[in-house]
Amino acid sequence: MQIDSFERLINEFSRLPAVGKKTAQRYAYFLLTMTDDEVKDFADAMVTAKESIHYCKICANFTDKEICDICSRQDKAPIICVVKEPKDVTALEKVREFKGSYHVLHGVINPLEGKGPNDLNIRSLLDRVKNENIEEVIVATNPDVEGEATAIYIANLLKPLGVKVTRIAQGISMGSELEFTDAMTLSKALSSRREM
Amino acid sequence: MQIDSFERLINEFSRLPAVGKKTAQRYAYFLLTMTDDEVKDFADAMVTAKESIHYCKICANFTDKEICDICSRQDKAPIICVVKEPKDVTALEKVREFKGSYHVLHGVINPLEGKGPNDLNIRSLLDRVKNENIEEVIVATNPDVEGEATAIYIANLLKPLGVKVTRIAQGISMGSELEFTDAMTLSKALSSRREM
Repeated sequence: MQIDSFERLINEFSRLPAVGKKTAQRYAYFLLTMTDDEVKDFADAMVTAKESIHYCKICANFTDKEICDICSRQDKAPIICVVKEPKDVTALEKVREFKGSYHVLHGVINPLEGKGPNDLNIRSLLDRVKNENIEEVIVATNPDVEGEATAIYIANLLKPLGVKVTRIAQGISMGSELEFTDAMTLSKALSSRREM
Repeated sequence: MQIDSFERLINEFSRLPAVGKKTAQRYAYFLLTMTDDEVKDFADAMVTAKESIHYCKICANFTDKEICDICSRQDKAPIICVVKEPKDVTALEKVREFKGSYHVLHGVINPLEGKGPNDLNIRSLLDRVKNENIEEVIVATNPDVEGEATAIYIANLLKPLGVKVTRIAQGISMGSELEFTDAMTLSKALSSRREM
C-alpha cells in the first residue's frame, strides 16, 4: 500500500524510542481503525502536552506550572537528589520515602556524544545549594561509566561549598541471585559491605 | 509527576496495540524532548492520514483515492485474493508474484467476539465475482480456527456461482525445522503432501 499520508504517519511513529518500521506500521494501521474524533483527541493530547509542559524554574523537572509540585512543597527536607532525567524523578517518587527535592541534569557527561558539563543543568544546582540552605546532595545518576563520571564531577564542585555529598548505594538488587549477578556489581557489593 | 496533560498523553499512547503503561510513558517523555514543530507535524500526520485514507470502493483496502492502486491496474488477472485485513495485502504484495486483485473482509467470523458473517465485507465479494468475470478466488485468511471457519463459509457461498475457490497452502514454513514444528502444522503438511 503506497499512500503518501500513510507513509508519513509510519515515519512519524518510527521516531518513537525502540519503534522500528514494523511496529510503526502496526500503530499506523491501528490509528486508521480509530474514529475521526479519537484520532483528533490523540493528536490534540500530543500538542497540548507539548505546549503546556516545560521545565520547573527550580529543579528543571517537567511541570505545567512555573514551579513544580515537588519544589512547591512547604515541608521538604533540605536535601537535593540529583538525577539524569525527569523519568528518574518519577521512579524515585514511587518509593515515597524521599522527602527532599530533586535536580534534573537533563543528561550526563558523555564525551562520545559530545556532551560536556556545560551542556548539563549544573550551574543552577550550585546556586540552589548556596541559597536554599541545603544540607545534603544525593547524586543519583545511573551506575554506569557516564553516570559515575558525572557524579564525581558534581561532587568535586559541591564539596568546596561545605555541603554533604552522597552517592546512592550500589550492590546486588533485591530478589536477584548472586549466581546471575555481573562481576562489576558483585565487586561493588563486596567493597560496600556493612557490618550487621 | 502528576501533570494532567501528561497523564492524558500517556493514556492516548496506551491505546496503541501492545503498548502498556511503561511504554506509553516512555513515548510521552520522548515526545516532550521533540521540538514544538516536530510534535505539531506528528499530530498533523495522524489527523491527515485519518482524514485522507478510507476504504477502496471495490476491494475495501485502505486508499486515499476512490479506487485503490491495485484495483485500478489495467492488466490485473481475473483472480481475487480474499484477506482478513489491509495489512495482509501489504504482506502479500511484498512477494510481487500475485497479479490479481484483493478483497478485504475487515475481520473473520468470531462468535466469541460476537462477529458474524454479516459484520464482514462479504456481500460485495459476491457482486464482484458475478460482475468482474472472476475465474478464481483464493481465500487467504489466517490458518487459525476463525480463519478456517471463514474460509469454509466463503467457499460455500462462492461455489454455486461456478467460480474456482482455492485456499492458500498450509505446511511447514521455509527455513523451519520439523523438530520444532507444532503437531497441527505437521499434520497439515503431511495430508497436503504432493508428488515429486
